Amino acid sequence: MKIGFDIMGGDFAPENAIKGALLAQKELSKEDTIVLIGDEEKAKSLISEYHGDAALFEYVHTTEVIGMGEHAAKAFTQKQNSSIAIGFKLLREESIHVFASAGNTGSMLVGSMFTIKAIPGVIRPCITSILPKENGGMGLILDVGSNADCKPDVLYQFGVLGAIYAERVYNIKNPKVALLNIGEESEKGNLVAQAAHNLMKDSKDFNFIGNVEGRDLFNDAADVIVCEGFVGNVVLKEAEAFYFLLKKRGLLDEYFHRFNYENYGGTAILGANGNVIIGHGISNDIAFKNMLLHSKDVVKANLPHYIRQKFN
Amino acid sequence: MKIGFDIMGGDFAPENAIKGALLAQKELSKEDTIVLIGDEEKAKSLISEYHGDAALFEYVHTTEVIGMGEHAAKAFTQKQNSSIAIGFKLLREESIHVFASAGNTGSMLVGSMFTIKAIPGVIRPCITSILPKENGGMGLILDVGSNADCKPDVLYQFGVLGAIYAERVYNIKNPKVALLNIGEESEKGNLVAQAAHNLMKDSKDFNFIGNVEGRDLFNDAADVIVCEGFVGNVVLKEAEAFYFLLKKRGLLDEYFHRFNYENYGGTAILGANGNVIIGHGISNDIAFKNMLLHSKDVVKANLPHYIRQKFN
Repeated sequence: MKIGFDIMGGDFAPENAIKGALLAQKELSKEDTIVLIGDEEKAKSLISEYHGDAALFEYVHTTEVIGMGEHAAKAFTQKQNSSIAIGFKLLREESIHVFASAGNTGSMLVGSMFTIKAIPGVIRPCITSILPKENGGMGLILDVGSNADCKPDVLYQFGVLGAIYAERVYNIKNPKVALLNIGEESEKGNLVAQAAHNLMKDSKDFNFIGNVEGRDLFNDAADVIVCEGFVGNVVLKEAEAFYFLLKKRGLLDEYFHRFNYENYGGTAILGANGNVIIGHGISNDIAFKNMLLHSKDVVKANLPHYIRQKFN
Repeated sequence: MKIGFDIMGGDFAPENAIKGALLAQKELSKEDTIVLIGDEEKAKSLISEYHGDAALFEYVHTTEVIGMGEHAAKAFTQKQNSSIAIGFKLLREESIHVFASAGNTGSMLVGSMFTIKAIPGVIRPCITSILPKENGGMGLILDVGSNADCKPDVLYQFGVLGAIYAERVYNIKNPKVALLNIGEESEKGNLVAQAAHNLMKDSKDFNFIGNVEGRDLFNDAADVIVCEGFVGNVVLKEAEAFYFLLKKRGLLDEYFHRFNYENYGGTAILGANGNVIIGHGISNDIAFKNMLLHSKDVVKANLPHYIRQKFN
């Protein structure tokens, strides 16, 4: 398997990206190769500095970088020799099996839509985040920011996509899918949630268990929680705020350690017609390592195949 | 001052309501009387059971109770001798200065609109919650559930209402008002947030400091955070979920203790043409006590006067 890796993306790239690649390489099998996409000379010099073996990697040299704050679409179309643009070119040509980056999220989404595109039938691809459950399990929330406003049919599709992701990547059998809402009753919520609930309630595409509330985010009520990207993003950042407050105050126990983004290493773009992984902008070496290992899991899960099957 | 108190509202009423009234009575001054609205005989028997002095209270006997799960408008109009309906009748007649209840929130909102009504010019009254800041200060978020969908001009008005509440009740001078969003830049967010940002950016009605994100809920970026009720409700319940997880795991420190709802005792309905306080459905004795003390603060702050002035 060839794992394409944007070493220029993220606040602490390329240094931490290279460190992460060295860590991941040790855990991958011989059949797997990380393709470092970015400044080749810099990559080799860092690998040498960190006492790694540059021969264990492949390289695709690029000369431009899309900054974290740049306008997503403009930067992607104008910087055709950026690590992100080249990464998507390689993915479309099938020179790599997956493309992973912690760079400009907007440009990653635009890149997906411009090159590999959405799987036919998927209205809006989306991104997810992990919700650590108190019982030791793991939940998913989607969308977490790529689609701020969602129509009810888009929320319905998030249920389909989330269920496939939970089942294929996280091995959750027949995942419980819920709609994030402000009350348990079907008539509760804003107009979009009310309409989405109506679409979902007789779903044969996933195991819909009804509405959940903010208080259910970390319990076992649901495995997949669906919401508009605006709400999901606020939920995610509130959880991060709590994590950092606990960390700062020395209150992290075994459970709350699981809120550390470093452990997860990113999310697939669900519904894209290929394997794309978006990492956290503040990724450090551990987060990069886990992003690369997660990339392998995602390729093995063959998500686009199962999503295509469902949307056919 | 006469503080009207629905002793039948809340999951643990009337027992905890009476306990709370006894605690509050000790902290109020001689000029203040709590008017117990509900089953008079039951109230007196509980006061005696808890070794209180029944003569220190006034009583308005009612014979019906609106249940926590009942349809808000239907129950309010049909149960005209319920503690909530009678409470609003007393408030409209000015027999009490404030009406406080931890009962059916929907019926409390409906009751406000049917009896004392909104202050002219206020499109949608709303409810708030406290955000404990890590620096020891206190922030406000609104709306937290009474208006799931909001138009941009409604969000703008929440900025006005929140600033008055923060200034008059919590003594925050020239409070920093922010819009809850998913990015700092003005063009970020869903359509409502984008439009609201445009309305707010040149506001002379409050001190608008721009967008904040989920990660800013507990820092000092803003004093008043404005959002649609759907989002605010999810934010609030997520914070509660964290609080209960921390409590269960024995991780509460001085700061996180401040997330305990018992300390705050409820929120005024901002924009109603009178003083109405809504408590948490799960209020215990301490929460009821603090709801009654908060009621006094709200009356003294004379919010309807200042809101009327602003919307004139």
